[in-house]
Amino acid sequence: MSVFTPVSAEQAAQLLTHYPLGELESLEGIAQGVENTNYFLTTTTGDYVLTLFEKLSAEDLPFYTGLMDHLATHDIACPAPIRAEDGRFTTELNGKPACIVTRLEGAPRMQPTVADCREVGEVLARLHVAGVGYDAGMANPNGRAWREGFAAKLRPHLSSGENALLEAENTYQSIHDETVLPVGIIHGDLFRDNILWDDAGRPGLIDFYFACDDALAFDLAITVNDWCTREDGAIDTMRMLNLVAGYEVMRPLEPQERALWPVMLRRAALRTWLGRLGYNHFPQDSHMTIPKDHAFSRRLLEHHISHAGELEASLA
Amino acid sequence: MSVFTPVSAEQAAQLLTHYPLGELESLEGIAQGVENTNYFLTTTTGDYVLTLFEKLSAEDLPFYTGLMDHLATHDIACPAPIRAEDGRFTTELNGKPACIVTRLEGAPRMQPTVADCREVGEVLARLHVAGVGYDAGMANPNGRAWREGFAAKLRPHLSSGENALLEAENTYQSIHDETVLPVGIIHGDLFRDNILWDDAGRPGLIDFYFACDDALAFDLAITVNDWCTREDGAIDTMRMLNLVAGYEVMRPLEPQERALWPVMLRRAALRTWLGRLGYNHFPQDSHMTIPKDHAFSRRLLEHHISHAGELEASLA
Repeated sequence: MSVFTPVSAEQAAQLLTHYPLGELESLEGIAQGVENTNYFLTTTTGDYVLTLFEKLSAEDLPFYTGLMDHLATHDIACPAPIRAEDGRFTTELNGKPACIVTRLEGAPRMQPTVADCREVGEVLARLHVAGVGYDAGMANPNGRAWREGFAAKLRPHLSSGENALLEAENTYQSIHDETVLPVGIIHGDLFRDNILWDDAGRPGLIDFYFACDDALAFDLAITVNDWCTREDGAIDTMRMLNLVAGYEVMRPLEPQERALWPVMLRRAALRTWLGRLGYNHFPQDSHMTIPKDHAFSRRLLEHHISHAGELEASLA
Repeated sequence: MSVFTPVSAEQAAQLLTHYPLGELESLEGIAQGVENTNYFLTTTTGDYVLTLFEKLSAEDLPFYTGLMDHLATHDIACPAPIRAEDGRFTTELNGKPACIVTRLEGAPRMQPTVADCREVGEVLARLHVAGVGYDAGMANPNGRAWREGFAAKLRPHLSSGENALLEAENTYQSIHDETVLPVGIIHGDLFRDNILWDDAGRPGLIDFYFACDDALAFDLAITVNDWCTREDGAIDTMRMLNLVAGYEVMRPLEPQERALWPVMLRRAALRTWLGRLGYNHFPQDSHMTIPKDHAFSRRLLEHHISHAGELEASLA
């Protein structure tokens, strides 16, 4: 979330005339995030988030709003999209596809405890199970073809060390067969800043715009890579085992998911590293944004590579 | 090679009336081998081998005779099939598909030196390169479907330890993607007893009846598993590196072949172990056979599993 496309209070007030949400009280740009433009929107009926999509197309947007609606009605604490007077969740503003969703209360926990990790694992599994009933699909736009193509695009901008690591890791990924894994709807970006814990200590999930169909174990790996790692890129084993244990309360892992666990952790680290290198070398024309550190995701990948044996044993 | 279907001297003499090979002088059953019936056939023109196929069908046989003919005419020292008066390499005897090939001089080297291994690597690469021009194909009948099906068939006959190892290894194999590897004609069984070294110290290859289309690196792994291992199942690194170096004189390995090297070694050990368990638990009705030890191939597989890190590093 960031502000790439400015929205004025007049525009927001005008937009609200098409929604059953009362009158505008305040509008505030959100700096976090790197993909979309986001505003907190407070009206006489409550707190909402207005998102303008910078990259997602108007055809793809119903997948995400439909997913949030499906999950919200299946007991997952997440933003619920609001229907406009025409019955649709999606609209357009300043030439961008847009939507309004409810704003979750709460704040991220950036120094999670072992107990927090357990709860995150459980809520992720609940998301995966609830996703089974959602009948729309979305191929992962950041799959193998993207990884290899994006690595080629980045090549001239990277150091030889970065390129060697990238090439070796793409080879490693290519020799593994993910198609044996259970797939379903994944959140795709369940980092610490995408879970808001309310006053009662319940986790709510936000930012579903990386959601797609992919290996469920990949989603678990994305989550572990953020929640269960130390600054030096090392896995905190206690936090990881607790997050996985929480996950398995709802959905026990299959043998092939255990066997591919190090591959999934490395794929998740690689994706983040590539994405952050991309933001670094091909910055968007952003009005307001907080760039993310790509050095950490590289350390993480390198740590996973040098500790492959331990990671293999960890869930075996 | 073994004798499953007896052939009399009269039958052999009668068969020879259809070949330009002179008169029968002697006929001698060969005990080695587990798939086919083999006789040494000496005539007034030279030494030959008569093979009756116990499992291969008459439709499949031309693939093997054509391959040997192709290789023999491309400077690979191997048995050359003999055409009968009807122009064909294949015939029938005692209801079995059959053929006659030239008999190579020489003897196996069961305690190979590092230099022998280097030469074996080189001859294997020459075989792979020569195979590129051969225009017939043969899917590997011992691929993944066979491995998984045969493991299921064996299950009731195996100990729980054997079954656990088999299941874990089939999972490990299934999470790797061999389809990224270069494929071609492989020998499929280039064990020490399938190379005969002549008086000048030149290696000749025999027993092509496991040949098929498969990953070339798999063939290299089959070969290393026999030529470069110690009795306890450990890899002799010097012999392995020399065999691979000999191979790379003719055909350098690609990055994905290096990355999948431990997987190929384990797949090769698994195939041999499964095959030998099969001979043990479902013996054929053999008149003469030397059963092979399945304990060694299990040790080999277990060694590869416990030394995965070293093996990964060995060709990296």
